[in-house]
Amino acid sequence: MAKPSRRVFLTSVPAFVACAPQGTRKTEVPPQAAQPRQRANAVEPSNSIVPGLAIHGGAGKIPRDWAPAKVEAYKSSLQRALLIGQDALAKGQDALDVVERVIRFLEDDPRFNAGKGAVLTANKTHELDASIMCGRTSRCGAVAGVTTVRHPISLARKVMDETRHVLLAGQGAEAFASVVGVERVEPSYFLAPGRVEAYEKAKARYEQGSSALADDEKKGTVGAVVLDQKGNLAAGTSTGGLTYKQYGRVGDSPIVGAGTFANNQTCAVSCTGTGEEYIRNAVAHEVSARMRLAGESVEQAASHVIHQVLQPGDGGLIALDHRGNIAMPFNTSAMFRGSVRLQGAPRVGVWE
Amino acid sequence: MAKPSRRVFLTSVPAFVACAPQGTRKTEVPPQAAQPRQRANAVEPSNSIVPGLAIHGGAGKIPRDWAPAKVEAYKSSLQRALLIGQDALAKGQDALDVVERVIRFLEDDPRFNAGKGAVLTANKTHELDASIMCGRTSRCGAVAGVTTVRHPISLARKVMDETRHVLLAGQGAEAFASVVGVERVEPSYFLAPGRVEAYEKAKARYEQGSSALADDEKKGTVGAVVLDQKGNLAAGTSTGGLTYKQYGRVGDSPIVGAGTFANNQTCAVSCTGTGEEYIRNAVAHEVSARMRLAGESVEQAASHVIHQVLQPGDGGLIALDHRGNIAMPFNTSAMFRGSVRLQGAPRVGVWE
Repeated sequence: MAKPSRRVFLTSVPAFVACAPQGTRKTEVPPQAAQPRQRANAVEPSNSIVPGLAIHGGAGKIPRDWAPAKVEAYKSSLQRALLIGQDALAKGQDALDVVERVIRFLEDDPRFNAGKGAVLTANKTHELDASIMCGRTSRCGAVAGVTTVRHPISLARKVMDETRHVLLAGQGAEAFASVVGVERVEPSYFLAPGRVEAYEKAKARYEQGSSALADDEKKGTVGAVVLDQKGNLAAGTSTGGLTYKQYGRVGDSPIVGAGTFANNQTCAVSCTGTGEEYIRNAVAHEVSARMRLAGESVEQAASHVIHQVLQPGDGGLIALDHRGNIAMPFNTSAMFRGSVRLQGAPRVGVWE
Repeated sequence: MAKPSRRVFLTSVPAFVACAPQGTRKTEVPPQAAQPRQRANAVEPSNSIVPGLAIHGGAGKIPRDWAPAKVEAYKSSLQRALLIGQDALAKGQDALDVVERVIRFLEDDPRFNAGKGAVLTANKTHELDASIMCGRTSRCGAVAGVTTVRHPISLARKVMDETRHVLLAGQGAEAFASVVGVERVEPSYFLAPGRVEAYEKAKARYEQGSSALADDEKKGTVGAVVLDQKGNLAAGTSTGGLTYKQYGRVGDSPIVGAGTFANNQTCAVSCTGTGEEYIRNAVAHEVSARMRLAGESVEQAASHVIHQVLQPGDGGLIALDHRGNIAMPFNTSAMFRGSVRLQGAPRVGVWE
């Protein structure tokens, strides 16, 4: 087979205007590049929009007796991520760019189970998943099971911007990474303190015949939801998945509709928790559907899904509506989370 | 690493009662096997339930001048599949078993782009996807990118019945197939007449720089939705994906919520078409959400999604509600499809 040309990946939506308002296109649309199509999810203009962002660093059981310095380190990292996002928003950056930027920062922090710091699979490898979605156009991109990409969220963005596809998996996603030229690292780059111990613990549980998830097997996914100054929403999620995961298991993080969703008419959502439950219930899409079809607020919709549809211990989500209202419900003992408006100081939380 | 034991895959829901009514369990639930959990999607009992099933064999542009004998061969295959399903329903089989049985038949028919007859990827390989979902419990299973499994729908069923996971991909899914022991075939088994020609055509289009899908690149996915005599719904979908697909592209067929969804409170759905649009709009879940949250009938909900949310040429879907009402809308020129009740003759169609 001849080496694939890149040209078929160029679509009607150049990266730099992917989430910009209509009418700002700087390049002509090649006539053959009919897919994927742009669709404007129109909302009425309003003066009451409050730009801002919310982020999470995973939900789970976090012991109350964690060393205060450890808790502060997590909080400090969340605060820095929020300030990076706030700064980008203030500069007028698009929601999608802010999502990518904030998640790249969290992927680089070894505390979280995404990018550097991703947990170990049963084969002692790292398999990373991520997805991103634009609320204005419904365009989205995702990757599953990548092993050498420093920032999976950026590869997901490339899938969105430069292919007609939504989800690329495994070796194919790695081959795509080589074609589009994102930053690559040695697999050993991802290893962070504590991950080998978590692996050994999960392995022991597995060998004892347990099929339930330990709390430390499912913590640390990161996500961001953003409303920019133009009133556009975007969402993204990135994860290393489950400690000791086997058989190419794919969770909800790379599944648009399950772990990530955004639509300017309703909200942007990023989820964290027991991925299988989020797929079964199409959780991120369900929050949006409840707002659109049942007239619920973002708080009502997000709370209903976390507390009525899911069960205690499943996880949490962050949601941001098209006016800037934020909901961050969770049914675990804790969720690393935070939010900030265009103006003002960031707020972060771990437990209630 | 030690060879993984199978025991952790045994969950609280043995295969033979996976979709049986509550109270019929024949085995004790091991206390440690807490996940995945059974959830009853309760509906009120009614005498007005009409058991039956609907199937599709893909949507796309099918020329009106196809040889009548060719059209008849497709119709005849759909009719046989429906009679197999009707017979299984009459014997009191569970919806989930009927879905699996009917799709296995369609996977074996080389006319359809699923199992034998799957289209060729850019690497001249076959990469098969499938998913299945139980409407009573919301349990589901899926596989993406398998290469040696004769009946991907049965492997998806095994993921549902024997793991805590929903989606297994690539080499991991193949390894799982070895552990659970489904029927394996040489990759050459899948090749069917016409597939090499379709590959060459798609390759030429690709090399000419086109990024739009040709109509014959996206036809032939199969799916089934079933309402059994106990009033339980189930749905399943199986596909070879796009001709000349690259980079581990995953479409909607293995994505629960996009290509497949079932819930006893609303409906069972299986989709076929341009998979990316079905993921973006969480189509299968959206049909269910419109019924549940907006009070629409299955016909209204399915028609709205196909004709208002999606765009002409995207594809179609089959949906069956918890009373037995069937909707089979499509926005392509044709969709291979058919339905049958517990009593009566099957009906099949290709164009309007």
